[in-house]
Amino acid sequence: MAIKHTIIAILGGTGKQGTGLALRWAAAGYTILIGSRQVEKARVSAETINRQLGIKSASGLSNQEAARRAEVSILTVIHSAHHDALVSLKDIMQGKILVDATSRVDFHNPKPPAAPCAAEEAQMILGPTVRVVAAFQNVPARSLSRNLGQPLDADVLVCSDDIPAAELVIGLAEAAGLRGYFAGPLINANVVEGLTSILISMNKHYGVKDARVRVAGISTEG
Amino acid sequence: MAIKHTIIAILGGTGKQGTGLALRWAAAGYTILIGSRQVEKARVSAETINRQLGIKSASGLSNQEAARRAEVSILTVIHSAHHDALVSLKDIMQGKILVDATSRVDFHNPKPPAAPCAAEEAQMILGPTVRVVAAFQNVPARSLSRNLGQPLDADVLVCSDDIPAAELVIGLAEAAGLRGYFAGPLINANVVEGLTSILISMNKHYGVKDARVRVAGISTEG
Repeated sequence: MAIKHTIIAILGGTGKQGTGLALRWAAAGYTILIGSRQVEKARVSAETINRQLGIKSASGLSNQEAARRAEVSILTVIHSAHHDALVSLKDIMQGKILVDATSRVDFHNPKPPAAPCAAEEAQMILGPTVRVVAAFQNVPARSLSRNLGQPLDADVLVCSDDIPAAELVIGLAEAAGLRGYFAGPLINANVVEGLTSILISMNKHYGVKDARVRVAGISTEG
Repeated sequence: MAIKHTIIAILGGTGKQGTGLALRWAAAGYTILIGSRQVEKARVSAETINRQLGIKSASGLSNQEAARRAEVSILTVIHSAHHDALVSLKDIMQGKILVDATSRVDFHNPKPPAAPCAAEEAQMILGPTVRVVAAFQNVPARSLSRNLGQPLDADVLVCSDDIPAAELVIGLAEAAGLRGYFAGPLINANVVEGLTSILISMNKHYGVKDARVRVAGISTEG
């Protein structure tokens, strides 16, 4: 296993999406810090990951402590917890990269959300010196935890006003077996959130569970 | 060549997108009526299509006359002409299918447009008995006119509150060598319009011309 020194915090990371991403990055050799408002829950999640992979490097912490120790933090909370989580992280995140994976779509009544998108809200709360990136909003969470080490047939649209930060996140997507694409400034992330509504409509109409979007016409090989 | 009896009007159909769709449908055997505010321009477009394909079935007409004679009308005007075109078509379109291909994104300053989407505007102007479908907003226009008869590596997200009308349009997408997918109610078309902004960002960032979106996870074979 390659040793990667990047330390990744997954904040609100005990849910299906956070756990799936954590598993894939831990399997790729990254040090993973699971953050939660309930530290005990975060510890249980981290222990499950350590046991499943036969490693010791995943830890469970409070969201603040995980963000403090990490180089990159991924926020995977539900939207109702989004604002308060960000307020509590504001000081800690200054100068660092915050990846917002929040999608505001209600699964029971899916419709495209209005601007500003969750990641723009994050930028407003955190202030201009936090490097906010929007990504992973509609990764099929179910698939992440299966066939670790196998690439997933899903693409990640990465939006940010900070291109070097976006490129780092594209690298993380690839380490998780996904393909990452730069998809323009943060404002475009509203479209990516809205895609969740389209994917839910497709899943219902076609009776499938993992409709997803791929990008074509760009060669990123090599 | 299969003889298809469906008559398709392409309104504001002298642009690149309208001409590309017209060529592909004419090549597949559909009767094509090119509509324009300038009838002479429509006639020239239709003649070009007839000459290129060695057929006589394409005609150029006013938008109103094309819509009156057609079973399905595709609106491919630019957004600044959208409102007036629809007002002029309101009486003619009652009970018929109007496919709105309008994307409101400014190529020089791309950003996701706010709701309501162009197709919802169309529904409001035309009234509830017109069967409005949103589709073809971000088909790569350049590719349509090339390699006629060859499938294109591009998918069409088809949104409508009228599922039988959407299914008819999915069939038209397939006749043009594209793959059509039902992508939910008309309200979701705002996301599809917004994808144009993401595709423009991708084209710029990656130095390509035809970034596009594909759907995965749905089998429509058979």
